[in-house]
Amino acid sequence: MQKVMISLQDVNPRVRGIRVSSQSTLQSLAEKTIREITQGVPKPFKEVIDVSSGDPQRAGMKPNSFVRQVLAVCLWPELLREEGLPLDVRLRAQRLLEACDGESVGSYTASSGLPHIRQTIAEFIMKRDEGVPAYAENIFISSGAQRALMVIVKLLSEGEGQPQTGLLIPQPCPHTLLPLLDEAGVMAAPYRLVEEKSWAVELSELHRALTTSRGRCTFRAIYISNPGNPTGHLQDRKSIEEVIEFAAAERLLLLVDEVYQDSVYAPNREFISYKKVLFEMDNHLRETVEMVSFNSLSCACVAECGLRAGYMEVINMDSGVMHFVDTMLCTDINAPVTGQLALDLMLSPPKPGDPSYNTFAEETLLTRPTLAQNAQRSLKLLNDLPGMSCWPAMGGIYLYPRLNLPAEIREQANMLGLEADLLYCQMLLQEEGLILGAGQHGGTTGSHYLRLCVLVPPDTLEEVLSRISSFHLRLTDREHNGSYRKTKSRRNMPSPAEEIGQSYI
Amino acid sequence: MQKVMISLQDVNPRVRGIRVSSQSTLQSLAEKTIREITQGVPKPFKEVIDVSSGDPQRAGMKPNSFVRQVLAVCLWPELLREEGLPLDVRLRAQRLLEACDGESVGSYTASSGLPHIRQTIAEFIMKRDEGVPAYAENIFISSGAQRALMVIVKLLSEGEGQPQTGLLIPQPCPHTLLPLLDEAGVMAAPYRLVEEKSWAVELSELHRALTTSRGRCTFRAIYISNPGNPTGHLQDRKSIEEVIEFAAAERLLLLVDEVYQDSVYAPNREFISYKKVLFEMDNHLRETVEMVSFNSLSCACVAECGLRAGYMEVINMDSGVMHFVDTMLCTDINAPVTGQLALDLMLSPPKPGDPSYNTFAEETLLTRPTLAQNAQRSLKLLNDLPGMSCWPAMGGIYLYPRLNLPAEIREQANMLGLEADLLYCQMLLQEEGLILGAGQHGGTTGSHYLRLCVLVPPDTLEEVLSRISSFHLRLTDREHNGSYRKTKSRRNMPSPAEEIGQSYI
Repeated sequence: MQKVMISLQDVNPRVRGIRVSSQSTLQSLAEKTIREITQGVPKPFKEVIDVSSGDPQRAGMKPNSFVRQVLAVCLWPELLREEGLPLDVRLRAQRLLEACDGESVGSYTASSGLPHIRQTIAEFIMKRDEGVPAYAENIFISSGAQRALMVIVKLLSEGEGQPQTGLLIPQPCPHTLLPLLDEAGVMAAPYRLVEEKSWAVELSELHRALTTSRGRCTFRAIYISNPGNPTGHLQDRKSIEEVIEFAAAERLLLLVDEVYQDSVYAPNREFISYKKVLFEMDNHLRETVEMVSFNSLSCACVAECGLRAGYMEVINMDSGVMHFVDTMLCTDINAPVTGQLALDLMLSPPKPGDPSYNTFAEETLLTRPTLAQNAQRSLKLLNDLPGMSCWPAMGGIYLYPRLNLPAEIREQANMLGLEADLLYCQMLLQEEGLILGAGQHGGTTGSHYLRLCVLVPPDTLEEVLSRISSFHLRLTDREHNGSYRKTKSRRNMPSPAEEIGQSYI
Repeated sequence: MQKVMISLQDVNPRVRGIRVSSQSTLQSLAEKTIREITQGVPKPFKEVIDVSSGDPQRAGMKPNSFVRQVLAVCLWPELLREEGLPLDVRLRAQRLLEACDGESVGSYTASSGLPHIRQTIAEFIMKRDEGVPAYAENIFISSGAQRALMVIVKLLSEGEGQPQTGLLIPQPCPHTLLPLLDEAGVMAAPYRLVEEKSWAVELSELHRALTTSRGRCTFRAIYISNPGNPTGHLQDRKSIEEVIEFAAAERLLLLVDEVYQDSVYAPNREFISYKKVLFEMDNHLRETVEMVSFNSLSCACVAECGLRAGYMEVINMDSGVMHFVDTMLCTDINAPVTGQLALDLMLSPPKPGDPSYNTFAEETLLTRPTLAQNAQRSLKLLNDLPGMSCWPAMGGIYLYPRLNLPAEIREQANMLGLEADLLYCQMLLQEEGLILGAGQHGGTTGSHYLRLCVLVPPDTLEEVLSRISSFHLRLTDREHNGSYRKTKSRRNMPSPAEEIGQSYI
């Protein structure tokens, strides 16, 4: 140890305190498995499929042609002369290049993003909210919604000697949230979403969470995910009003993760933004409730996760405080320009009559029905499996089924010091090469859940459901036989259709 | 105030403590000026030119065709069939797409970057260092060198109740460094670079800086910029050895900013990396000195600042500590994929015989002579101006001339509570529409400096020099006349060439 200059105990205790999520445990196991496949180690599956997090293009969803064509022209402007490309593609690329310094995507931008694109975002929001005003100067572009959230959370965290900053968070919450709060040194106080009410936000739970943790921290904000990640719940106007009134009464900043606003698919339901609801409430609330709403390029329909861009709209915040939002973004220099341009294309797509409109509409408007059908298909299968039950989702890209696991698995998990759903996911990965997410516990135990992204091509979904089904039925079978049987090779098993058919019996 | 939920005093004191750099003051003034030009407010110049920071493409430098063509194909893979594009462009794009999950740049990558590209980087480093081994698992790709540095600095910063972490930093230093350290809560202890020795690092200064601040913090690392930003100084092997021995003796992690490694242009000098020097020193040092070296896509020759990517190589670090580097990068999700791909192209360019080689060589190999000629041209002009003196730079993209300002300006700055070089830059911006950087003081005052990026097209440089020259001579003239004269309109002034000619008299 004497030789080491920087040893473990020199590492920032806050960084050391970042909780290892079940997601990163599974990812490490997946990497090992993939390496073994490459090295020729025999496995009962040919390839690993990962539906634990939302990465539609990895799963085989196709990118949007209009977005990609415009970006290609912006990168290689010689293509402006390529007549094989639709005229609106080339005109848009020209306009976006003019918005960049030096007419190049290779130049830095302001840390809050290109003014032209902040304006596009403001116009999109205003249209979405049917006229509620939105201003470019309240929009901050960042390299993803997660990064934007980190900026706000750090802004609110307290220095030494002060009571720790507290943040109300839903339980379950997005799997990336707890590590982020750990790093920022903010205390998470979970309010339970009510599973029996299809994961609704309940006012009494907000009050309970606040009361339970009061005195142990200074509450400054409440975080909401709507449509819910991972629950798929969509709040209605009344529920949103309740949360706004609660935030106002408790003087909490509202942090609203609305990254799945484009992917509500439940019949007769549509997304309504927190901002719109707020601006239709009484004057006092409209003028005083402070809110930050997050959106992302990695959302459902365009799903350009790899390009890294998102934004936040800051509402009713003190201008002195907002100045520090900009200061914090400065240390990132700026969000990647290709991502910024893709935000512009996502929020201001081709219009009817434009040469690219038909293709654009065909590609993106198909996403929602695919999502709805996939969700429906998965829901039926999951609910038909013994010991599994799942609420229908209304939006977002996940299903979050509850697992009632065999006692044997729960005991084994206990011995290994793991949550039983994580053990389930590890076994599923090892036996079937399928990665699902394990439940977000955040301190509560006893119930177990899985997280399943359903925004994948339908044939991939069939394969995913087939793997879940065979594994789950084998596991139940094991329990019935009181002992483990050697895993059958998938190659000797019935076809996915037959398997799924059987599972319904 | 009662209405505000989050007021200024609720903002994280560490964030509130981020020092406002002279750079951001100037940028705000520049934005205001540009807005006024757009609104038709008459100005003595048509457009603002900014050479205060390194943004070559904004200044008009052309991007590299090979890099841009491959990226365009990766974004719009239909172009793989475009026979008008060189074959090696299409083959490389195909290879890079295969390295992406789902063969799409729209998928997430591991938080430390695509394995294929980490391997390319390791191979580049090994070749650069003539065989010193480099391993992909020690390479971490991030959205820029600045972001990578932030990760390491945060890793080293201390929690509550501990003595603050100290970092030795050069004086002058990159203008982005102090805000970053403020945000991380790390104490900067400056060691002076020795201007009389063309801004060399001097051992006695390192010891002095350490001794002066000892007891007020726990020193954990030393930061070096080589080639120097903003000084342009290039360390020789002996100087690097001295720093390494110092770091070893004081048990400090070496943070080496080597982002301008591709832009050494002094005759008979070449870049030698800290890592190579270390690995040619004795075994004990080679095996124990811990080091992180940073490089960036925003460097001189490819200069894709807007795409946001960089990387760090971590050397001899404890594996348990390295694990937390990965943990910290996780909150960023991953560096933008287009930037990651551009890193691959920058570090593994076309080879002689490849269809794109000639164009590539023509474009990138021209950058260094342009840089050298621009630096030479600027140096002569600056040194010929009264009250200005500048050391020749050996590499990097900046010149850093010393300003001996008229007493009148210094008094006026004093009254305004500004450093005199910042006032100079503000006046230069208002009168000539030119943005230069002001000196990096970091606590020391009395001497004043300017920062000037010389990686711009030669005709832009002529315009820049002309504006500096007219402004500076007017200022000197004002002093001689004991009073300010109304600023002459540039439209009535001699042509840039005549002006520069006059300034040599």
